[in-house]
Amino acid sequence: MPKDIRIIEVKRSIFEDNDKDAACLRAKLKEKGVFLLNLMSSPGSGKTSTLLALAKALSGRIRMGVMEADIDASVDAEAMAAAGVPSIQIHTGGMCHLDADMTRQGLYEFGLENAELIILENVGNLVCPAEFDTGAVKNMTILSVPEGDDKPLKYPLMYEKCDLLVINKIDVLPYFDFDLQRAAAYARARNPHIEILPISAKTGEGIEALADWIVAQAKSWREG
Amino acid sequence: MPKDIRIIEVKRSIFEDNDKDAACLRAKLKEKGVFLLNLMSSPGSGKTSTLLALAKALSGRIRMGVMEADIDASVDAEAMAAAGVPSIQIHTGGMCHLDADMTRQGLYEFGLENAELIILENVGNLVCPAEFDTGAVKNMTILSVPEGDDKPLKYPLMYEKCDLLVINKIDVLPYFDFDLQRAAAYARARNPHIEILPISAKTGEGIEALADWIVAQAKSWREG
Repeated sequence: MPKDIRIIEVKRSIFEDNDKDAACLRAKLKEKGVFLLNLMSSPGSGKTSTLLALAKALSGRIRMGVMEADIDASVDAEAMAAAGVPSIQIHTGGMCHLDADMTRQGLYEFGLENAELIILENVGNLVCPAEFDTGAVKNMTILSVPEGDDKPLKYPLMYEKCDLLVINKIDVLPYFDFDLQRAAAYARARNPHIEILPISAKTGEGIEALADWIVAQAKSWREG
Repeated sequence: MPKDIRIIEVKRSIFEDNDKDAACLRAKLKEKGVFLLNLMSSPGSGKTSTLLALAKALSGRIRMGVMEADIDASVDAEAMAAAGVPSIQIHTGGMCHLDADMTRQGLYEFGLENAELIILENVGNLVCPAEFDTGAVKNMTILSVPEGDDKPLKYPLMYEKCDLLVINKIDVLPYFDFDLQRAAAYARARNPHIEILPISAKTGEGIEALADWIVAQAKSWREG
Protein backbone atom coordinates (compact mmCIF):
# COMPACT_ATOMS: atom_id res chain seq x y z
CA MET A 1 0.00 0.00 0.00
CA PRO A 2 2.16 2.89 -1.29
CA LYS A 3 -0.13 5.60 0.16
CA ASP A 4 0.43 4.32 3.72
CA ILE A 5 4.18 4.04 3.23
CA ARG A 6 4.39 7.64 2.10
CA ILE A 7 2.54 8.87 5.19
CA ILE A 8 4.74 6.89 7.54
CA GLU A 9 7.95 8.24 6.00
CA VAL A 10 6.84 11.82 6.45
CA LYS A 11 5.81 11.09 10.01
CA ARG A 12 9.21 9.55 10.81
CA SER A 13 11.14 12.58 9.57
CA ILE A 14 8.86 14.86 11.60
CA PHE A 15 9.50 12.75 14.72
CA GLU A 16 13.29 12.82 14.21
CA ASP A 17 13.38 16.60 13.76
CA ASN A 18 11.14 16.98 16.77
CA ASP A 19 13.31 14.81 19.02
CA LYS A 20 16.31 17.04 18.26
CA ASP A 21 14.30 20.21 18.94
CA ALA A 22 13.03 18.71 22.22
CA ALA A 23 16.53 17.80 23.43
CA CYS A 24 17.76 21.36 22.65
CA LEU A 25 14.84 22.88 24.51
CA ARG A 26 15.46 20.68 27.58
CA ALA A 27 19.13 21.74 27.63
CA LYS A 28 18.03 25.38 27.60
CA LEU A 29 15.54 24.76 30.42
CA LYS A 30 18.27 23.06 32.47
CA GLU A 31 20.60 26.03 31.95
CA LYS A 32 17.88 28.43 33.13
CA GLY A 33 16.70 26.20 36.00
CA VAL A 34 13.12 26.08 34.69
CA PHE A 35 11.01 22.95 35.23
CA LEU A 36 8.60 22.33 32.34
CA LEU A 37 5.77 19.90 33.05
CA ASN A 38 3.60 18.69 30.16
CA LEU A 39 -0.02 18.02 31.17
CA MET A 40 -2.08 15.82 28.85
CA SER A 41 -5.57 14.28 29.05
CA SER A 42 -8.91 13.78 27.31
CA PRO A 43 -11.07 16.85 26.81
CA GLY A 44 -13.02 17.59 29.97
CA SER A 45 -10.98 15.56 32.45
CA GLY A 46 -10.23 18.69 34.49
CA LYS A 47 -6.84 20.01 33.33
CA THR A 48 -7.77 23.67 33.80
CA SER A 49 -9.51 23.22 37.15
CA THR A 50 -6.54 21.17 38.42
CA LEU A 51 -4.18 23.98 37.37
CA LEU A 52 -6.34 26.56 39.15
CA ALA A 53 -6.27 24.46 42.35
CA LEU A 54 -2.51 23.96 41.99
CA ALA A 55 -1.88 27.68 41.51
CA LYS A 56 -3.35 28.28 44.97
CA ALA A 57 -1.47 25.37 46.57
CA LEU A 58 1.86 26.39 45.01
CA SER A 59 1.53 30.10 45.80
CA GLY A 60 4.60 31.20 47.80
CA ARG A 61 6.36 27.86 47.20
CA ILE A 62 7.47 28.19 43.56
CA ARG A 63 7.01 30.81 40.83
CA MET A 64 4.53 29.19 38.45
CA GLY A 65 3.45 29.99 34.90
CA VAL A 66 1.01 28.25 32.58
CA MET A 67 1.13 27.77 28.82
CA GLU A 68 -2.29 26.96 27.37
CA ALA A 69 -2.45 25.12 24.06
CA ASP A 70 -5.76 25.17 22.24
CA ILE A 71 -6.91 24.76 18.70
CA ASP A 72 -8.28 28.26 18.44
CA ALA A 73 -10.05 29.15 21.71
CA SER A 74 -8.67 31.17 24.63
CA VAL A 75 -11.14 30.31 27.42
CA ASP A 76 -8.51 28.48 29.50
CA ALA A 77 -5.94 31.28 29.36
CA GLU A 78 -8.70 33.73 30.31
CA ALA A 79 -9.57 31.55 33.34
CA MET A 80 -5.90 31.51 34.37
CA ALA A 81 -5.51 35.27 33.94
CA ALA A 82 -8.69 35.85 35.98
CA ALA A 83 -7.10 33.79 38.78
CA GLY A 84 -3.93 35.87 38.60
CA VAL A 85 -1.74 33.08 37.17
CA PRO A 86 0.83 34.30 34.63
CA SER A 87 -0.11 32.53 31.42
CA ILE A 88 0.31 32.50 27.68
CA GLN A 89 -2.01 31.06 25.01
CA ILE A 90 -0.76 29.04 22.04
CA HIS A 91 -3.13 28.40 19.15
CA THR A 92 -2.23 25.25 17.25
CA GLY A 93 -4.23 26.32 14.19
CA GLY A 94 -6.22 23.09 14.00
CA MET A 95 -3.37 20.78 14.95
CA CYS A 96 -4.07 18.06 17.49
CA HIS A 97 -0.87 18.34 19.53
CA LEU A 98 2.10 20.55 20.37
CA ASP A 99 5.60 19.78 19.15
CA ALA A 100 8.89 21.00 20.63
CA ASP A 101 9.22 23.91 18.22
CA MET A 102 5.76 25.27 19.04
CA THR A 103 6.50 24.81 22.75
CA ARG A 104 9.82 26.66 22.43
CA GLN A 105 8.11 29.58 20.65
CA GLY A 106 5.54 29.81 23.44
CA LEU A 107 8.13 29.58 26.23
CA TYR A 108 10.38 32.27 24.73
CA GLU A 109 7.37 34.54 24.29
CA PHE A 110 6.43 33.91 27.94
CA GLY A 111 10.05 34.52 29.04
CA LEU A 112 12.06 31.79 30.78
CA GLU A 113 13.14 34.23 33.50
CA ASN A 114 9.52 34.72 34.60
CA ALA A 115 8.93 31.33 36.25
CA GLU A 116 10.66 28.39 37.96
CA LEU A 117 7.84 26.06 36.97
CA ILE A 118 5.88 26.19 33.73
CA ILE A 119 3.00 23.82 33.21
CA LEU A 120 2.02 23.22 29.61
CA GLU A 121 -1.67 22.39 29.24
CA ASN A 122 -1.59 20.37 26.01
CA VAL A 123 -4.54 19.93 23.60
CA GLY A 124 -7.24 17.65 25.08
CA ASN A 125 -6.43 14.40 23.28
CA LEU A 126 -5.16 11.00 24.47
CA VAL A 127 -3.52 10.03 21.18
CA CYS A 128 -1.42 12.61 19.30
CA PRO A 129 0.14 14.64 22.17
CA ALA A 130 1.75 11.43 23.50
CA GLU A 131 3.59 10.97 20.18
CA PHE A 132 5.48 14.28 20.32
CA ASP A 133 8.21 15.12 22.85
CA THR A 134 7.50 18.77 23.73
CA GLY A 135 10.85 19.24 25.47
CA ALA A 136 9.19 18.96 28.88
CA VAL A 137 11.19 17.55 31.80
CA LYS A 138 8.28 15.39 33.00
CA ASN A 139 4.92 14.34 31.58
CA MET A 140 1.70 13.87 33.49
CA THR A 141 -1.77 12.76 32.46
CA ILE A 142 -5.15 13.14 34.13
CA LEU A 143 -7.75 10.37 34.01
CA SER A 144 -11.10 11.46 35.42
CA VAL A 145 -13.47 9.03 37.11
CA PRO A 146 -16.38 9.51 34.64
CA GLU A 147 -14.15 8.43 31.73
CA GLY A 148 -13.87 4.89 33.08
CA ASP A 149 -10.97 2.85 34.46
CA ASP A 150 -10.24 1.09 31.14
CA LYS A 151 -8.55 4.04 29.40
CA PRO A 152 -4.97 2.68 29.87
CA LEU A 153 -6.05 -0.37 27.85
CA LYS A 154 -7.21 1.78 24.96
CA TYR A 155 -4.66 4.61 24.84
CA PRO A 156 -1.45 2.79 25.80
CA LEU A 157 1.17 5.27 24.55
CA MET A 158 -0.14 8.04 26.81
CA TYR A 159 0.46 5.90 29.90
CA GLU A 160 3.85 4.68 28.66
CA LYS A 161 5.07 8.25 28.20
CA CYS A 162 3.85 9.70 31.51
CA ASP A 163 5.73 9.91 34.82
CA LEU A 164 2.59 10.71 36.80
CA LEU A 165 -1.05 9.65 36.51
CA VAL A 166 -3.48 11.92 38.36
CA ILE A 167 -6.92 10.38 38.88
CA ASN A 168 -9.32 13.33 39.11
CA LYS A 169 -12.98 13.78 40.16
CA ILE A 170 -12.73 11.20 42.98
CA ASP A 171 -15.59 13.12 44.65
CA VAL A 172 -17.99 11.46 42.16
CA LEU A 173 -16.66 7.90 42.65
CA PRO A 174 -19.98 6.80 44.24
CA TYR A 175 -21.89 7.62 41.04
CA PHE A 176 -19.67 5.76 38.56
CA ASP A 177 -18.46 2.21 38.04
CA PHE A 178 -14.79 3.13 38.42
CA ASP A 179 -12.33 1.02 40.40
CA LEU A 180 -9.20 2.89 41.54
CA GLN A 181 -7.22 -0.34 41.99
CA ARG A 182 -8.17 -1.57 38.53
CA ALA A 183 -7.21 1.76 36.92
CA ALA A 184 -3.86 1.66 38.73
CA ALA A 185 -3.23 -1.95 37.65
CA TYR A 186 -4.05 -1.17 33.99
CA ALA A 187 -1.76 1.91 34.05
CA ARG A 188 1.11 -0.03 35.70
CA ALA A 189 0.75 -2.83 33.15
CA ARG A 190 1.61 -0.18 30.53
CA ASN A 191 4.25 1.54 32.65
CA PRO A 192 5.52 -0.06 35.89
CA HIS A 193 7.26 3.20 36.95
CA ILE A 194 4.22 5.49 36.69
CA GLU A 195 3.33 7.29 39.93
CA ILE A 196 -0.37 7.63 40.77
CA LEU A 197 -2.14 10.35 42.76
CA PRO A 198 -5.94 10.48 43.26
CA ILE A 199 -7.36 14.01 43.57
CA SER A 200 -10.48 16.10 43.35
CA ALA A 201 -9.79 19.50 41.85
CA LYS A 202 -13.30 20.47 42.95
CA THR A 203 -13.02 19.63 46.68
CA GLY A 204 -9.23 20.08 46.91
CA GLU A 205 -8.60 16.52 48.09
CA GLY A 206 -5.10 15.35 47.08
CA ILE A 207 -4.02 18.75 45.71
CA GLU A 208 -1.39 19.24 48.44
CA ALA A 209 0.20 15.88 47.59
CA LEU A 210 0.26 16.84 43.90
CA ALA A 211 1.83 20.22 44.76
CA ASP A 212 4.49 18.42 46.86
CA TRP A 213 5.28 16.05 43.98
CA ILE A 214 5.75 18.96 41.57
CA VAL A 215 7.94 20.99 43.97
CA ALA A 216 10.15 17.93 44.64
CA GLN A 217 10.52 17.21 40.91
CA ALA A 218 11.37 20.85 40.14
CA LYS A 219 13.99 20.88 42.96
CA SER A 220 15.58 17.67 41.73
CA TRP A 221 15.72 19.08 38.15
CA ARG A 222 17.36 22.33 39.30
CA GLU A 223 19.86 20.61 41.56
CA GLY A 224 20.38 17.31 39.70
CA MET B 1 8.90 28.43 8.09
CA PRO B 2 9.59 25.75 5.43
CA LYS B 3 9.01 22.85 7.86
CA ASP B 4 5.41 23.89 8.48
CA ILE B 5 4.76 24.42 4.77
CA ARG B 6 5.96 20.91 3.99
CA ILE B 7 3.61 19.36 6.55
CA ILE B 8 0.61 21.32 5.32
CA GLU B 9 1.17 20.29 1.71
CA VAL B 10 1.26 16.61 2.62
CA LYS B 11 -1.86 17.03 4.71
CA ARG B 12 -3.70 18.69 1.83
CA SER B 13 -2.94 15.87 -0.61
CA ILE B 14 -4.05 13.32 1.99
CA PHE B 15 -7.34 15.21 2.46
CA GLU B 16 -7.98 15.40 -1.31
CA ASP B 17 -7.35 11.69 -1.82
CA ASN B 18 -9.53 10.94 1.16
CA ASP B 19 -12.44 13.06 -0.07
CA LYS B 20 -12.48 11.06 -3.33
CA ASP B 21 -12.35 7.75 -1.45
CA ALA B 22 -15.19 8.91 0.82
CA ALA B 23 -17.43 9.92 -2.10
CA CYS B 24 -16.85 6.52 -3.77
CA LEU B 25 -17.68 4.69 -0.56
CA ARG B 26 -20.92 6.68 -0.08
CA ALA B 27 -21.98 5.84 -3.65
CA LYS B 28 -21.43 2.14 -2.90
CA LEU B 29 -23.42 2.40 0.36
CA LYS B 30 -26.27 4.11 -1.52
CA GLU B 31 -26.30 1.31 -4.12
CA LYS B 32 -26.48 -1.32 -1.37
CA GLY B 33 -28.99 0.61 0.77
CA VAL B 34 -26.68 0.63 3.79
CA PHE B 35 -26.74 3.58 6.21
CA LEU B 36 -23.31 4.26 7.72
CA LEU B 37 -23.28 6.46 10.83
CA ASN B 38 -19.95 7.77 12.13
CA LEU B 39 -19.88 8.14 15.94
CA MET B 40 -17.17 10.38 17.41
CA SER B 41 -16.41 11.71 20.91
CA SER B 42 -13.79 12.13 23.62
CA PRO B 43 -12.49 8.99 25.30
CA GLY B 44 -14.88 7.90 28.03
CA SER B 45 -17.97 9.85 26.96
CA GLY B 46 -19.95 6.62 26.59
CA LYS B 47 -19.78 5.61 22.92
CA THR B 48 -19.76 1.88 23.65
CA SER B 49 -22.47 1.94 26.31
CA THR B 50 -24.67 4.06 24.02
CA LEU B 51 -24.21 1.50 21.24
CA LEU B 52 -25.12 -1.33 23.61
CA ALA B 53 -28.30 0.50 24.66
CA LEU B 54 -29.11 1.26 21.00
CA ALA B 55 -28.63 -2.37 19.96
CA LYS B 56 -31.46 -3.33 22.33
CA ALA B 57 -33.71 -0.45 21.25
CA LEU B 58 -33.16 -1.15 17.53
CA SER B 59 -33.62 -4.90 17.78
CA GLY B 60 -36.35 -5.98 15.34
CA ARG B 61 -36.48 -2.50 13.76
CA ILE B 62 -33.33 -2.49 11.61
CA ARG B 63 -30.45 -4.92 11.04
CA MET B 64 -27.54 -3.27 12.83
CA GLY B 65 -23.80 -3.86 12.76
CA VAL B 66 -20.95 -2.09 14.56
CA MET B 67 -17.43 -1.32 13.38
CA GLU B 68 -15.08 -0.60 16.28
CA ALA B 69 -11.97 1.49 15.61
CA ASP B 70 -9.25 1.36 18.24
CA ILE B 71 -5.55 1.99 18.32
CA ASP B 72 -4.69 -1.56 19.29
CA ALA B 73 -7.23 -2.81 21.86
CA SER B 74 -10.31 -4.96 21.24
CA VAL B 75 -12.29 -4.46 24.46
CA ASP B 76 -15.16 -2.64 22.72
CA ALA B 77 -15.64 -5.27 20.00
CA GLU B 78 -15.59 -7.94 22.73
CA ALA B 79 -18.34 -6.05 24.60
CA MET B 80 -20.41 -5.89 21.40
CA ALA B 81 -19.92 -9.57 20.62
CA ALA B 82 -20.88 -10.49 24.19
CA ALA B 83 -24.14 -8.56 23.68
CA GLY B 84 -24.78 -10.41 20.41
CA VAL B 85 -24.24 -7.40 18.14
CA PRO B 86 -22.50 -8.27 14.84
CA SER B 87 -19.27 -6.33 14.94
CA ILE B 88 -15.83 -5.98 13.46
CA GLN B 89 -12.69 -4.48 15.00
CA ILE B 90 -10.34 -2.17 13.11
CA HIS B 91 -6.93 -1.46 14.57
CA THR B 92 -5.55 1.89 13.40
CA GLY B 93 -1.97 0.96 14.34
CA GLY B 94 -1.37 4.05 16.45
CA MET B 95 -3.28 6.45 14.18
CA CYS B 96 -5.63 8.93 15.79
CA HIS B 97 -8.51 8.67 13.32
CA LEU B 98 -10.07 6.58 10.55
CA ASP B 99 -9.98 7.65 6.92
CA ALA B 100 -12.31 6.52 4.12
CA ASP B 101 -9.95 3.82 2.88
CA MET B 102 -9.63 2.20 6.31
CA THR B 103 -13.41 2.42 6.71
CA ARG B 104 -13.97 0.79 3.32
CA GLN B 105 -11.62 -2.07 4.20
CA GLY B 106 -13.49 -2.67 7.46
CA LEU B 107 -16.93 -2.50 5.81
CA TYR B 108 -16.01 -4.93 3.03
CA GLU B 109 -14.58 -7.33 5.58
CA PHE B 110 -17.83 -7.05 7.59
CA GLY B 111 -19.91 -7.53 4.42
CA LEU B 112 -22.33 -4.82 3.23
CA GLU B 113 -25.10 -7.42 2.78
CA ASN B 114 -25.04 -8.18 6.52
CA ALA B 115 -26.63 -4.97 7.82
CA GLU B 116 -28.94 -2.07 6.90
CA LEU B 117 -27.28 0.16 9.50
CA ILE B 118 -23.61 0.16 10.41
CA ILE B 119 -22.38 2.40 13.20
CA LEU B 120 -18.70 3.21 13.11
CA GLU B 121 -17.30 3.84 16.59
CA ASN B 122 -14.36 6.10 15.75
CA VAL B 123 -11.20 6.55 17.87
CA GLY B 124 -11.93 8.54 21.06
CA ASN B 125 -10.65 11.97 20.03
CA LEU B 126 -12.35 15.34 19.43
CA VAL B 127 -9.76 16.65 16.98
CA CYS B 128 -8.45 14.37 14.23
CA PRO B 129 -11.53 12.22 13.42
CA ALA B 130 -13.46 15.40 12.52
CA GLU B 131 -10.87 16.21 9.83
CA PHE B 132 -11.38 13.02 7.82
CA ASP B 133 -14.55 12.16 5.90
CA THR B 134 -14.97 8.42 6.53
CA GLY B 135 -17.59 8.00 3.81
CA ALA B 136 -20.38 7.92 6.41
CA VAL B 137 -23.82 9.22 5.47
CA LYS B 138 -24.22 11.10 8.76
CA ASN B 139 -21.93 12.06 11.64
CA MET B 140 -22.81 12.21 15.31
CA THR B 141 -20.87 13.18 18.39
CA ILE B 142 -21.44 12.47 22.08
CA LEU B 143 -20.71 15.08 24.73
CA SER B 144 -21.00 13.69 28.26
CA VAL B 145 -22.05 15.84 31.20
CA PRO B 146 -18.80 15.40 33.23
CA GLU B 147 -16.75 16.80 30.32
CA GLY B 148 -18.32 20.24 30.72
CA ASP B 149 -20.59 22.34 28.54
CA ASP B 150 -17.75 24.38 27.01
CA LYS B 151 -16.45 21.70 24.64
CA PRO B 152 -18.02 23.21 21.49
CA LEU B 153 -15.95 26.33 22.16
CA LYS B 154 -12.73 24.36 22.25
CA TYR B 155 -13.21 21.69 19.56
CA PRO B 156 -15.19 23.63 16.93
CA LEU B 157 -14.64 21.41 13.87
CA MET B 158 -16.23 18.39 15.57
CA TYR B 159 -19.48 20.32 16.07
CA GLU B 160 -19.38 21.83 12.58
CA LYS B 161 -19.11 18.38 11.00
CA CYS B 162 -21.81 16.61 13.00
CA ASP B 163 -25.50 16.26 12.17
CA LEU B 164 -26.42 15.14 15.68
CA LEU B 165 -25.13 15.99 19.14
CA VAL B 166 -26.03 13.47 21.82
CA ILE B 167 -25.59 14.74 25.37
CA ASN B 168 -24.93 11.65 27.50
CA LYS B 169 -24.83 10.91 31.26
CA ILE B 170 -27.72 13.27 32.04
CA ASP B 171 -28.36 11.06 35.11
CA VAL B 172 -25.38 12.78 36.81
CA LEU B 173 -26.43 16.35 35.97
CA PRO B 174 -27.03 17.14 39.69
CA TYR B 175 -23.36 16.45 40.50
CA PHE B 176 -21.77 18.62 37.81
CA ASP B 177 -21.82 22.26 36.79
CA PHE B 178 -23.23 21.52 33.31
CA ASP B 179 -25.95 23.63 31.72
CA LEU B 180 -27.88 21.86 28.92
CA GLN B 181 -29.08 25.15 27.42
CA ARG B 182 -25.56 26.58 27.42
CA ALA B 183 -24.12 23.44 25.77
CA ALA B 184 -26.86 23.61 23.11
CA ALA B 185 -26.22 27.32 22.48
CA TYR B 186 -22.44 26.78 22.12
CA ALA B 187 -23.02 23.86 19.72
CA ARG B 188 -25.54 25.80 17.62
CA ALA B 189 -23.16 28.78 17.43
CA ARG B 190 -20.78 26.39 15.65
CA ASN B 191 -23.49 24.68 13.60
CA PRO B 192 -27.04 26.09 13.46
CA HIS B 193 -28.37 22.88 11.86
CA ILE B 194 -27.10 20.43 14.50
CA GLU B 195 -29.82 18.35 16.15
CA ILE B 196 -29.49 17.73 19.89
CA LEU B 197 -30.70 14.76 21.95
CA PRO B 198 -30.05 14.37 25.70
CA ILE B 199 -29.73 10.74 26.88
CA SER B 200 -28.48 8.50 29.64
CA ALA B 201 -27.07 5.26 28.24
CA LYS B 202 -27.02 4.02 31.85
CA THR B 203 -30.69 4.58 32.73
CA GLY B 204 -32.02 4.34 29.14
CA GLU B 205 -33.54 7.83 29.18
CA GLY B 206 -33.68 9.28 25.64
CA ILE B 207 -32.50 6.07 23.94
CA GLU B 208 -35.85 5.52 22.18
CA ALA B 209 -35.70 9.03 20.70
CA LEU B 210 -32.16 8.36 19.49
CA ALA B 211 -33.24 5.03 17.97
CA ASP B 212 -36.15 6.81 16.20
CA TRP B 213 -33.76 9.43 14.78
CA ILE B 214 -31.46 6.74 13.40
CA VAL B 215 -34.28 4.68 11.85
CA ALA B 216 -35.73 7.79 10.19
CA GLN B 217 -32.32 8.81 8.81
CA ALA B 218 -31.67 5.30 7.47
CA LYS B 219 -35.10 5.20 5.81
CA SER B 220 -34.59 8.60 4.19
CA TRP B 221 -31.14 7.46 2.88
CA ARG B 222 -32.55 4.24 1.41
CA GLU B 223 -35.53 5.94 -0.18
CA GLY B 224 -34.06 9.39 -0.96
